[in-house]
Amino acid sequence: MAEKITPRSENYSQWYVDIVVQAQLADYSPVKGCMVIRPRGYALWEAVQSQLDAMFKETGHSNAYFPLLIPESFIHKEAEHVEGFSPELAVVTHAGGEELEESLVIRPTSETIIWSMYKKWIQSYRDLPLLINQWANVLRWEKRTRLFLRTTEFLWQEGHTAHETSEEAEEETLRMLDVYRRFVEEYMAIPVLTGRKSESEKFAGAIDTYAIEAMMQDRKALQAGTSHFLGQNFAKAFDVTYQTKEGKLDYVWATSWGVSTRLIGALIMTHSDDKGLVVPPRLAPTEVVVVPIFKNKNKTEVTDYASKLYQELKGEFKVAYDDDDANSPGWKFAEWEMRGVPVRVEIGPRDMENHKAMLVRRDTGEKEAVEIERVPSRVKELLEEIQRDLYEKALANRREHTYRFNRYSDFKTLFEEDGGFADSHWCGDPECEAAIKEDTKATIRVLPFDQEGLEGKSCIRCGKTAKYRAIFAKAY
Amino acid sequence: MAEKITPRSENYSQWYVDIVVQAQLADYSPVKGCMVIRPRGYALWEAVQSQLDAMFKETGHSNAYFPLLIPESFIHKEAEHVEGFSPELAVVTHAGGEELEESLVIRPTSETIIWSMYKKWIQSYRDLPLLINQWANVLRWEKRTRLFLRTTEFLWQEGHTAHETSEEAEEETLRMLDVYRRFVEEYMAIPVLTGRKSESEKFAGAIDTYAIEAMMQDRKALQAGTSHFLGQNFAKAFDVTYQTKEGKLDYVWATSWGVSTRLIGALIMTHSDDKGLVVPPRLAPTEVVVVPIFKNKNKTEVTDYASKLYQELKGEFKVAYDDDDANSPGWKFAEWEMRGVPVRVEIGPRDMENHKAMLVRRDTGEKEAVEIERVPSRVKELLEEIQRDLYEKALANRREHTYRFNRYSDFKTLFEEDGGFADSHWCGDPECEAAIKEDTKATIRVLPFDQEGLEGKSCIRCGKTAKYRAIFAKAY
Repeated sequence: MAEKITPRSENYSQWYVDIVVQAQLADYSPVKGCMVIRPRGYALWEAVQSQLDAMFKETGHSNAYFPLLIPESFIHKEAEHVEGFSPELAVVTHAGGEELEESLVIRPTSETIIWSMYKKWIQSYRDLPLLINQWANVLRWEKRTRLFLRTTEFLWQEGHTAHETSEEAEEETLRMLDVYRRFVEEYMAIPVLTGRKSESEKFAGAIDTYAIEAMMQDRKALQAGTSHFLGQNFAKAFDVTYQTKEGKLDYVWATSWGVSTRLIGALIMTHSDDKGLVVPPRLAPTEVVVVPIFKNKNKTEVTDYASKLYQELKGEFKVAYDDDDANSPGWKFAEWEMRGVPVRVEIGPRDMENHKAMLVRRDTGEKEAVEIERVPSRVKELLEEIQRDLYEKALANRREHTYRFNRYSDFKTLFEEDGGFADSHWCGDPECEAAIKEDTKATIRVLPFDQEGLEGKSCIRCGKTAKYRAIFAKAY
Repeated sequence: MAEKITPRSENYSQWYVDIVVQAQLADYSPVKGCMVIRPRGYALWEAVQSQLDAMFKETGHSNAYFPLLIPESFIHKEAEHVEGFSPELAVVTHAGGEELEESLVIRPTSETIIWSMYKKWIQSYRDLPLLINQWANVLRWEKRTRLFLRTTEFLWQEGHTAHETSEEAEEETLRMLDVYRRFVEEYMAIPVLTGRKSESEKFAGAIDTYAIEAMMQDRKALQAGTSHFLGQNFAKAFDVTYQTKEGKLDYVWATSWGVSTRLIGALIMTHSDDKGLVVPPRLAPTEVVVVPIFKNKNKTEVTDYASKLYQELKGEFKVAYDDDDANSPGWKFAEWEMRGVPVRVEIGPRDMENHKAMLVRRDTGEKEAVEIERVPSRVKELLEEIQRDLYEKALANRREHTYRFNRYSDFKTLFEEDGGFADSHWCGDPECEAAIKEDTKATIRVLPFDQEGLEGKSCIRCGKTAKYRAIFAKAY
């Protein structure tokens, strides 16, 4: 907590990097494009993992682990997949002191290696559905990287499921999209838009890709999770058939879905401020910090009083206690604000006399003096209020910066100036989509599920009959 | 559960593979030497992770994540380290469609990349101790592999700590060895010997390596975990100094320690039998299975009765319920025995009439009819008894096959015939150690902490004055 954080108004990108580095969430590594996730950042990822993992298990999924290395030929078995991922592969050509007969690639995603195993495991409808998830590292060689948001190596989970019918697989695709939506909204306090991707934005190898998209404080979009309906593409590429109940052979239907350490970037960019990190209480590794304020002459009394409260809070909350006397109270307040702990409890000699403690909200800075007996119940309320308010604030930001335009000139102006989401209409022509991207750098984030009221609407750019309602934005 | 498991007496190695494959713990992958950990095997690893992770956190450690790829030059910075690991490296030479300027190796262990970061993070004694753990995949190119026991890629945890003094680092090394001992004995029900490794068996780059060693059912030793005192070797290689309390600069002292998915192999080889897997209750993903036994005519009554018990048990235990009518009761019993579920509860019409249920222990096969109201409390007792008995049985096996010899000819005979542990004495000469290995294939597993009573003892092979008490065995 030595250096100052660049204000958002001055340089948003630098502000983001300052938070990540100074709150010690992550650091640059000696390997180009790879980051080190430091303990405070990893604790956030552990909170994400533990909640999501429980939600995956509730929906019937089991975890497994597949190899890091994939024979290069596997990637070539699905035509779109190879086109999408080939440019990003890291290739192992030598191992154990010898050149390999066939090069191995580090997994950029695991569809191919997993479907090569599903061929062994699936024979009959009795083996379906097969609902497997993997927590793993993956690697995609990226030219431009940013801590958490886009790194060469990242951590993620990837679900890979196999089903008897197209309908079942589509249902699973949407079920997991909804798991993501619920998790990101209810735990991370980040409101998201859901919908389908256009052809040009979908996953390489999918029939349909669905996504959750959030608006960051700079009004750019961030894709926070995707769920893919893969049809029979990978089953055909790896020849995975099953015996149906009627005794016929048919190809299996598939889905895959994933979220990554990018979510930590979304969390930072949605809630944090110029003082540092802001963590929603439901994901906070530390929910409350107790800071006694003392001088040498009254240290024992104050810390006795404060540590008693700390002990009491510890039974119910994740609490830190900071009675370090090497630093001033002001320094400590700034430090705990930097770290994003949702509630700070200050106790000085005056509070002690009045039988009170001072509660400070990290998100708003609001202070309130609370009777000492009421501190635990008030902390509980505050954590819930903060969780709700962070969500509401992010939602208000998105609403304020979401526009419906009739004229393409207004649409273009938005992306030249303030930025935001344009809730518009599109003719469905990929060339028109490309022209819009060329003009504005904005892309279609989702085609929302709600496509009502298309009649009489026309494409924001070309004016032809609208085929879709579409959300446009510049994106991370 | 279609095929038969090869009996241990017939072919121990094949028995092991049969268990792993038929209990669906793991499978061979298309990538040489890499395995796929299937959901039932991964559930065991999750149980290991969750308990060990709690124990690491209780002892003050935090998790973090460091890059998979390491610049090849880093491995060369510590002289012994490079010698030990170079032959096993997998090398990335190309990425993003281009040849890399410097090749990157996939981490075989992370000392080098981590100490390159510690150099950035450690300036003063205030930054110490630094207590970090990482759960990750690592890769060592192995010529001969065996599912779980030795695979090219494996999952593990690696702790890496930095300290002010040699004493503190040595204390940490032994503390973590003891965490491993406690976990393996109390949760996995595997008794272990602890001690120091000889020079020839220690970690490449360590001053001292300590290990926990277990005896498998075939009387071979398996190294189940190691903890290394690294001295200042890596601090010097990566120039990591800190300002002492006295204002001087000094190199930092280090430890590292790890256990891996090999533990799952140890678990199988210690407890399982010719019917399949046996899982100690404290690590069992499923503790109890309830199997109603019915015919068509009484199905509803029996399953009503059994499912009521299942619902009751579910509140307290991890329970499965098997009322599938595609398979016979006998088939199901064999299936659940194969999977290693510690307690089976059978309920047939007769049991129902008598207001009882039949409880069957997986480890011994013992059956007892229990009043229906007493089932939950009896299951609880049985799980504790099984946990204890598995440990005792493994301990008895080790005791029975641990020998003290006076003559080298007897020592050699042991390793030609039955095998076991030889609790012997050694002169301390590496050449004598090598000669013993040459003669018997046995190596020094540990030099036990208890080195009392050396006086008058002589080396088992050369007869010179004994410098150490040493446990010799053939090892996995």
